[in-house]
Amino acid sequence: MYEKNDRRARAERTDRPERREQKAREDKRRPRPVTDSAADGIIEGRNAVIEALRAGTNIDKILIARGETDAALGHIASTAREKGIVVVDADRRKLDNMSQTHSHQGVIAIAAIREYASVDDILAAAREKGEQPLVVVCDELSDPHNLGAVIRTAECAGAHGIIIPKRRSAGLTAIVAKTSAGAVSHVPVARVPNLTACLKELKEQGLWVFGSAAGGNVNLYDADLKGPAAIVIGSEGSGMSRLVAENCDFTVSIPMKGKLNSLNASAAAAILLYEAVRQRS
Amino acid sequence: MYEKNDRRARAERTDRPERREQKAREDKRRPRPVTDSAADGIIEGRNAVIEALRAGTNIDKILIARGETDAALGHIASTAREKGIVVVDADRRKLDNMSQTHSHQGVIAIAAIREYASVDDILAAAREKGEQPLVVVCDELSDPHNLGAVIRTAECAGAHGIIIPKRRSAGLTAIVAKTSAGAVSHVPVARVPNLTACLKELKEQGLWVFGSAAGGNVNLYDADLKGPAAIVIGSEGSGMSRLVAENCDFTVSIPMKGKLNSLNASAAAAILLYEAVRQRS
Repeated sequence: MYEKNDRRARAERTDRPERREQKAREDKRRPRPVTDSAADGIIEGRNAVIEALRAGTNIDKILIARGETDAALGHIASTAREKGIVVVDADRRKLDNMSQTHSHQGVIAIAAIREYASVDDILAAAREKGEQPLVVVCDELSDPHNLGAVIRTAECAGAHGIIIPKRRSAGLTAIVAKTSAGAVSHVPVARVPNLTACLKELKEQGLWVFGSAAGGNVNLYDADLKGPAAIVIGSEGSGMSRLVAENCDFTVSIPMKGKLNSLNASAAAAILLYEAVRQRS
Repeated sequence: MYEKNDRRARAERTDRPERREQKAREDKRRPRPVTDSAADGIIEGRNAVIEALRAGTNIDKILIARGETDAALGHIASTAREKGIVVVDADRRKLDNMSQTHSHQGVIAIAAIREYASVDDILAAAREKGEQPLVVVCDELSDPHNLGAVIRTAECAGAHGIIIPKRRSAGLTAIVAKTSAGAVSHVPVARVPNLTACLKELKEQGLWVFGSAAGGNVNLYDADLKGPAAIVIGSEGSGMSRLVAENCDFTVSIPMKGKLNSLNASAAAAILLYEAVRQRS
């Protein structure tokens, strides 16, 4: 992401017409609801800010809309001041302009950009807890709402971490943080250059890799999710990419009882993760 | 809308460049702030709304700008109420945001995308299939994306219908239809004036009512979802309302293994519904 931005920045500096065209094409191709750019480091909305404070996220300052006085905002302000964080009364229009979600609820925290974890960090977290690793791998979830929803459910299910690819995926932006209801502060997210290589590494570390796909080779309720497991969630449009699918040990099919042939990515993640919770309980 | 989805599916198959561009534009348009604003089924302006009422258009609700009081708007409001359509006093800025023509004249009607079913229709659908009823009751899901996601998952899980309250809930608008991936055309949705009365009726019909709540009195995996069941999903902010919670036979608690204390409404629905699928399989 930083590399990509660097390259884009260079391209914009050189500003050659063919680069501009390529950039336009890239922009058009990518079904990108949100840019990773300015969104990074902004935490919006009451729950997200409270969770970030609770988790000890490195917050630079907190902006509260002038004139807003209620218990929740008062609680945020006092908690922040106790932690030595600067709290600023700001014009509501300033918050509106900064907001990416357009529902900041009167409060925006500006955080240092959330550090990505490494895959080793995630596996170490499982070891520390003395649990079989449960990892969620998101294959190109470009919609930040979907990624945030998956991270939230993964945290609730006690997954040890989330792995996303460096390219063609939403990053840890404000929208993701908000949709995750603050879960991004509690569960490590690793970003890897190559998902296929990462799956191979996970398998070497002893994890079984379960993909989710219509017409998979194992029924959900026959899949053994008690052992060390990585659950791969495919993208909204087209499911798992071919190479990723080929590197799964199993492809799990969730029963479809109606006429539709697929679930939303975050619903599929919820169903798979809580089947793991059930089997492990 | 369903036609559009079909068209999109075809376009993705044929994959013509102009379709790709249109798709990219559509994708860019999608991640709107969560309101009914992007809905296609918006009827703006006094004459247009009066004509729609006269023509018997299936209208979900009518928003009138707060503070506007004149004969024409009064006529619209009283005609709508006679027809049992919900009329809401809304902030003028909300109408401004929803407006596509920027001349709403203080009134916007939101067309329903399809006819609502009755609770009897839903129970009849279960009988016809020779299955134990599985019904989803949404307690004030005001976010159309959440309601659409719940309807999609319910359809995939083979639920026989969805019940929503008339007030304080998203209706079957274009956004709901779109987020449901077309599921609204496959699964009946009933809208009732009083959810508590409806739960009592469901219990008289032999259904067990399962609410979902943190700290519920039954663990998810101990709940018996094989029999005739209604699953109640609470609102995003505050969960089930008190009266609704009091009318549940059981409140089911989904295990929370992390630090957050709640799942997103649509994730909770997915987990409960697929636990029912597992138990019934």
